[in-house]
Amino acid sequence: MREDVNEKCAVVGIYGHKEASRLAYFSLHALQHRGQEAAGISSSDGKKLHTIKKRGLVMRVFDEAKLKTLSGNNAVGHTRYSTAGDDSILDAQPVFARYDLGEMAIVHNGNFTNADEVRNALISKGAIFQTYMDTENLIHLIAKSEKKNLLERIIDAVERIEGAFSLVFLSRTKMFAMRDRHGFRPLSLGKLPNSGYLVASETCAFDLVGAEFIRDVEPGELLVFENNKEPKSIKVFEPTPKHCIFEYVYFARPDSKVFGQSVYQTRKNMGKELAHIKPVEADIVIPVPDGGVPSAIGYAQESGIPYEMGIMRNHYIGRTFIEPTQEMRDLKVKMKLSPMTDIIKGKRVIVVDDSIVRGTTSKRIVKMLKEAGASEVHMRVSSPPTTDPCYYGVDTPDKDKLIAANMTEDEICEFIEADSLAYLDEATLLRSVNAKEENYCTACFTGKYII
Amino acid sequence: MREDVNEKCAVVGIYGHKEASRLAYFSLHALQHRGQEAAGISSSDGKKLHTIKKRGLVMRVFDEAKLKTLSGNNAVGHTRYSTAGDDSILDAQPVFARYDLGEMAIVHNGNFTNADEVRNALISKGAIFQTYMDTENLIHLIAKSEKKNLLERIIDAVERIEGAFSLVFLSRTKMFAMRDRHGFRPLSLGKLPNSGYLVASETCAFDLVGAEFIRDVEPGELLVFENNKEPKSIKVFEPTPKHCIFEYVYFARPDSKVFGQSVYQTRKNMGKELAHIKPVEADIVIPVPDGGVPSAIGYAQESGIPYEMGIMRNHYIGRTFIEPTQEMRDLKVKMKLSPMTDIIKGKRVIVVDDSIVRGTTSKRIVKMLKEAGASEVHMRVSSPPTTDPCYYGVDTPDKDKLIAANMTEDEICEFIEADSLAYLDEATLLRSVNAKEENYCTACFTGKYII
Amino acid sequence: MREDVNEKCAVVGIYGHKEASRLAYFSLHALQHRGQEAAGISSSDGKKLHTIKKRGLVMRVFDEAKLKTLSGNNAVGHTRYSTAGDDSILDAQPVFARYDLGEMAIVHNGNFTNADEVRNALISKGAIFQTYMDTENLIHLIAKSEKKNLLERIIDAVERIEGAFSLVFLSRTKMFAMRDRHGFRPLSLGKLPNSGYLVASETCAFDLVGAEFIRDVEPGELLVFENNKEPKSIKVFEPTPKHCIFEYVYFARPDSKVFGQSVYQTRKNMGKELAHIKPVEADIVIPVPDGGVPSAIGYAQESGIPYEMGIMRNHYIGRTFIEPTQEMRDLKVKMKLSPMTDIIKGKRVIVVDDSIVRGTTSKRIVKMLKEAGASEVHMRVSSPPTTDPCYYGVDTPDKDKLIAANMTEDEICEFIEADSLAYLDEATLLRSVNAKEENYCTACFTGKYII
Amino acid sequence: MREDVNEKCAVVGIYGHKEASRLAYFSLHALQHRGQEAAGISSSDGKKLHTIKKRGLVMRVFDEAKLKTLSGNNAVGHTRYSTAGDDSILDAQPVFARYDLGEMAIVHNGNFTNADEVRNALISKGAIFQTYMDTENLIHLIAKSEKKNLLERIIDAVERIEGAFSLVFLSRTKMFAMRDRHGFRPLSLGKLPNSGYLVASETCAFDLVGAEFIRDVEPGELLVFENNKEPKSIKVFEPTPKHCIFEYVYFARPDSKVFGQSVYQTRKNMGKELAHIKPVEADIVIPVPDGGVPSAIGYAQESGIPYEMGIMRNHYIGRTFIEPTQEMRDLKVKMKLSPMTDIIKGKRVIVVDDSIVRGTTSKRIVKMLKEAGASEVHMRVSSPPTTDPCYYGVDTPDKDKLIAANMTEDEICEFIEADSLAYLDEATLLRSVNAKEENYCTACFTGKYII
Repeated sequence: MREDVNEKCAVVGIYGHKEASRLAYFSLHALQHRGQEAAGISSSDGKKLHTIKKRGLVMRVFDEAKLKTLSGNNAVGHTRYSTAGDDSILDAQPVFARYDLGEMAIVHNGNFTNADEVRNALISKGAIFQTYMDTENLIHLIAKSEKKNLLERIIDAVERIEGAFSLVFLSRTKMFAMRDRHGFRPLSLGKLPNSGYLVASETCAFDLVGAEFIRDVEPGELLVFENNKEPKSIKVFEPTPKHCIFEYVYFARPDSKVFGQSVYQTRKNMGKELAHIKPVEADIVIPVPDGGVPSAIGYAQESGIPYEMGIMRNHYIGRTFIEPTQEMRDLKVKMKLSPMTDIIKGKRVIVVDDSIVRGTTSKRIVKMLKEAGASEVHMRVSSPPTTDPCYYGVDTPDKDKLIAANMTEDEICEFIEADSLAYLDEATLLRSVNAKEENYCTACFTGKYII
Repeated sequence: MREDVNEKCAVVGIYGHKEASRLAYFSLHALQHRGQEAAGISSSDGKKLHTIKKRGLVMRVFDEAKLKTLSGNNAVGHTRYSTAGDDSILDAQPVFARYDLGEMAIVHNGNFTNADEVRNALISKGAIFQTYMDTENLIHLIAKSEKKNLLERIIDAVERIEGAFSLVFLSRTKMFAMRDRHGFRPLSLGKLPNSGYLVASETCAFDLVGAEFIRDVEPGELLVFENNKEPKSIKVFEPTPKHCIFEYVYFARPDSKVFGQSVYQTRKNMGKELAHIKPVEADIVIPVPDGGVPSAIGYAQESGIPYEMGIMRNHYIGRTFIEPTQEMRDLKVKMKLSPMTDIIKGKRVIVVDDSIVRGTTSKRIVKMLKEAGASEVHMRVSSPPTTDPCYYGVDTPDKDKLIAANMTEDEICEFIEADSLAYLDEATLLRSVNAKEENYCTACFTGKYII
Repeated sequence: MREDVNEKCAVVGIYGHKEASRLAYFSLHALQHRGQEAAGISSSDGKKLHTIKKRGLVMRVFDEAKLKTLSGNNAVGHTRYSTAGDDSILDAQPVFARYDLGEMAIVHNGNFTNADEVRNALISKGAIFQTYMDTENLIHLIAKSEKKNLLERIIDAVERIEGAFSLVFLSRTKMFAMRDRHGFRPLSLGKLPNSGYLVASETCAFDLVGAEFIRDVEPGELLVFENNKEPKSIKVFEPTPKHCIFEYVYFARPDSKVFGQSVYQTRKNMGKELAHIKPVEADIVIPVPDGGVPSAIGYAQESGIPYEMGIMRNHYIGRTFIEPTQEMRDLKVKMKLSPMTDIIKGKRVIVVDDSIVRGTTSKRIVKMLKEAGASEVHMRVSSPPTTDPCYYGVDTPDKDKLIAANMTEDEICEFIEADSLAYLDEATLLRSVNAKEENYCTACFTGKYII
Repeated sequence: MREDVNEKCAVVGIYGHKEASRLAYFSLHALQHRGQEAAGISSSDGKKLHTIKKRGLVMRVFDEAKLKTLSGNNAVGHTRYSTAGDDSILDAQPVFARYDLGEMAIVHNGNFTNADEVRNALISKGAIFQTYMDTENLIHLIAKSEKKNLLERIIDAVERIEGAFSLVFLSRTKMFAMRDRHGFRPLSLGKLPNSGYLVASETCAFDLVGAEFIRDVEPGELLVFENNKEPKSIKVFEPTPKHCIFEYVYFARPDSKVFGQSVYQTRKNMGKELAHIKPVEADIVIPVPDGGVPSAIGYAQESGIPYEMGIMRNHYIGRTFIEPTQEMRDLKVKMKLSPMTDIIKGKRVIVVDDSIVRGTTSKRIVKMLKEAGASEVHMRVSSPPTTDPCYYGVDTPDKDKLIAANMTEDEICEFIEADSLAYLDEATLLRSVNAKEENYCTACFTGKYII
């Protein structure tokens, strides 16, 4: 997990399986990389919803006894990246509501860009908000809609919100899955082995529970799961795809397929393109693990320069509250990453990372490699300079903390003390992912926000 | 703690003290006997409310780091008896809301008798409910009120609700305390040592934090704390006191003063009256600890029969998940209570308890005393037969579980296998607490519900 | 639990019951008052011993899964008062050893007075000690004994040690229970409901598991449990009883019978004698809970002055790490004890406690009562001045911390700011417990150590 | 971590640094891969040893408060792979002893092959064993030695034991480090930045704390650290190196240097040799992560077949107690490893692993790759068939569980359902690590045990 840019959430929905909450649990585990701070599941037994949500990793939040209380054939689940910061769990999902049509639970990956505006309008009409999540807007819009049934009200509600949303709704008997018109965040539909369906943020969840990938939920599409039949599709919005290119760059698990393509393959392509357009003479190509591995492999294949595991990542890292001694310089980075000294010493090293956000980690890595004896360190980044924050569901630092928003490439190179630095340009990135420019959101590299 | 009748909550409010949340913490600790399942505090720093609430005892929920995040000079706190039963903490308090006037937090001890009706009306107008607490009605009523400021809206809102409520409201700069017109549940006002005020369900909280008792909040009275001045009193309702007599019988801590009188003293009086009207020849008087201690002392003083500690209570009791062996009969009661065999053997024993609810515990106690060698066991109960459930803030079993609703005193005596059984009658109970009948709610003994 | 004088341990042994470790668990729970820091059980399945020991209350240390690993028909258990102070659990019991005859586990309540001497002798012959417990001496003495079987070796070993010991030994097929010749610490024998036997420090353990009291293990007696027969008795030492009088004064649970007498009854006698020899005019008699309750009842009965519950003890006390505010004077004592103001105000109060150790708690109690309005406070102590530390298994402060070792009664009275202070003298104490002087150890009051 | 073959421990010693226990803590963290079940540190403040040891990862066992109690300038530490299986922590290290020369603590990586014999001899002379660790023999031998000082006694003791041992001893003022004559297990000496020395099982610990590598402790060498001088070397045994070849194959961290060579580099060599002698036509080379990564890189470089990350490892894996549904076949392997379907589909895949122990994991991996669409799966193993258990400090299954002890290579290939299977032969393995055959122990591949 990077420390500076983080996916905000993962969602999952299970419909029509007698072990719905159990499948939700394992699916959330597969999606743990999209949010480590809190996890929750709501299930429906046909009469009532049951909800458990709590701080912690999926494996710690649930146990057999808790899964048993989450009875019923339908369930939605959520993992969440960092919340407001105190111990309140108000901001965990699913969001639950009793309202005039009964009960509902909602899970949401994304961000409503008009959340403040909608909230203020709702509040001025007497609505109350009990959390700081923009998702809470949605239950108000549904509750206040004058349409007769939940399906129509969901449509009514999503028409009022803007921004990025991959949503799953659970009522006492039905389930709904919906993606915004731009399809910013991924959401895929699968078929469970014997009966039932699942939707999940990434297909890696399908693989774990043995589900078969059917297709992506389309941008602007609403899927209705009812009566144990196959989902009915409703085109709520005309699709104008603007998929988040950063899912390919960093967020998604490499064994997932998102937006119709293998994540691993697109990352390798980025590395190949990078080698092609930003070559440099060197002895070895090494990745910054784990994010840079696929693009480093691609870079090495394209350049013919040998791929090496030059930096090792320590996976026993947790939170330590022990202060280092004065002599243990750079302890924080070293507890996580350590150099393979013998492979690096005396070598001209190309080190490939997926992105540079604040620049401080890159600086420490270059330093570490130089201390390990690298004669040259060439930083290659498999995405363009990150210049702008994301408003569509990714937790990014403010613009003034983004090094590429404040320095030229040359200045960054000097700051991180590398011998050379090169990024992938936007056009090449798009070519790497085999994508039409108009179908992808690249605002974090260009500042061209579409909403 | 009895297992069958339980106070639902305690509330506390601290106004105008720089360590507000710390004082709330210690006050809640003193009120722990009114609710052991969850605890929460909201503080206000003048600009924003901060809330932490969680399952567990007060001492476990908070630590120094958490108290530090609860900054500001004003705070409200709550302890709660058992919630819906799963791991969700949705039903803990304070209830927090953002609404058109800003932010508020509410803590509530009591029960709204028209909660369903109000909730349905609100829901039919588009309100959503995110918890199962009746208190949530209140934030909706306040948010939807057309009055201009919070003070007027609180008045507007409480006029719409019926039932029992001792409430404390916290806004970004003010605090409000309110009791229903009947004053069902206690709420007292105190002065903090150097500056500031507190309100709390019982005065035992005052003693711990060094506060001085001023007076009870009056039935129907609303106290407004603002501008660091002494609280302003507003008479919202004409007071028609109906204090909960069961606070004297069992709930309140004996070192508290509620409804203007010492709890310990009233309990002793009950025991004295019981000795007077329901005498029996015996060798010793023993209490069922801890509830029956003061009335047993009173009984012994009045009757002249020696008081003994005939049953010991084990205070290391927690939750054990270890199954007993077949031979360990009556393990559950024995882990909690054990007989002083030598004092009981061959004696005619009067055992005094505060009340009989289901009858099963009384039956086990009689059996335990007989097995310990008592030649006679005379059960004396310092309150009338509990025949009706409470709708004003106490967690009671359904009527069909209340033994006195389904058996005569003779039948109960036979069921619990005592040699005699006697209750205090209502009139004598009222005399014991030196109270006018019309000022107290005795519905749990009479079924005469006033709302 | 007092903070200043503490029993060091409890022991239990179960022989010949298919749920041996389960019965040990419940027995230890009943003996929890004798040690709260650590708990452990060793079981024997006929071939191998199994041991689990850990910091914490009995209920926290064990769960079903752990009890299942403690298989077999025989088991010994231990609870322990505070150990060396760090997180090492080296000093928890049972002590386990593999040696030339196989495996053994030992639990010990008491203290070896010649431990250093024996240890040094053993060490000088090449023995190694892995803990700081004197009990470790015993396994060395057994292992090094030249006798042929464990029975003879136990006899050989205990002949080498001096001091106080109630011991239970577990081998792969047998169990042994032994008391030192003076019988300092209690140890009783009981019969389990269907089959098997138990020994335990106090009979309150018998009551919980449904066992029948047979008799005390005699001073100097060794009981041998083998072949599922009734235990064989061996007189190892000529008994010269010196029972710890402080078991009656404070340690033992009031519902236990130790040294042949009811603990509650002896405490009541102390109170009666105290009233007889140290009368004072007053309005009420109140105990310092929970220790002073029986003697206060006795005092009240003898004096005719009404018994009242004048101080309440809060049983939710755990460890709080929250700092009080400056204004919360005497928070520590108040969180534990609070005065019943209405009963105390304007009264001349006799407050009865079991003992005064450092004097600081007594001082706080007197102050608390005066602040609650007592016109006079007369402290009555149901034991003589505690002048000397214990070397026979009780954790006492050093002599210079014992107030009665450094002040006269008058000075103590002045220090604690009471209106009068009176102790029970040694002769009267002995009469209270119906004991011959020569059969009891009163060294903590007299300094007359017998070893 | 493999599930079937595991290093038993790591050791560390810090001498002459005022933050000794803190440095031991961070060093142990770097060595966490050598043992995850328990961790412990003993420190010496010149007068007394302090020990904390407990089940759990290093980061969980210690906190600031605990490190503070481990005061002093010298410390030894240990991490341990799985112990006897119950909750007893008897078998954690350091082993602590008080004996005739004072106090000592020992940490041990290895295994004494004559442990039973030595123990029985000691036991027959009256020694007692309180744990199941062979290390306990050593403290007895030292305690019983007739030599005058600890140094001489250590020499005396290690002359009595056979097998594998890298040891660090701590006394109240000195530290000693010792390796067996064969140098089975690694142990290196480093210099701390400002003052003091450290010894550790692997050099990755040096890198984290900023220490400088000096040299390996020699086989048969004893280092004496005293008087804050540089360590004095004593040749206790004539060195006859038999380094554990499996440290290179799997155990050691790739960024460590053990037995004088880079672990990463030797692993790459194994892969290269494997490609050279066991070529196969294929489309991609993939590693089984993380163990197979370096050799797969080597294989790919040598063969010219592209290296790919074909299997992803999930690092959020902890212990889940949730049962899968029936449909989730192969859940256990899938929660840990998942295939990169798009890279594998339709490809001829060479999958490189470091070793095959039971064969069940390999079978699951082949199956997973085939299900992901691999047209051919060729398993390449960068070590010879594992045919024999280790008696020198590695936890291996019994011989009847080792697939290569019971099947031919062809049978194994059939069992794991691979299209081809090839191992590295012993001679080539030795060449890969640039080693003389006589200097390495290859017993796990050959059964030629040297002791």
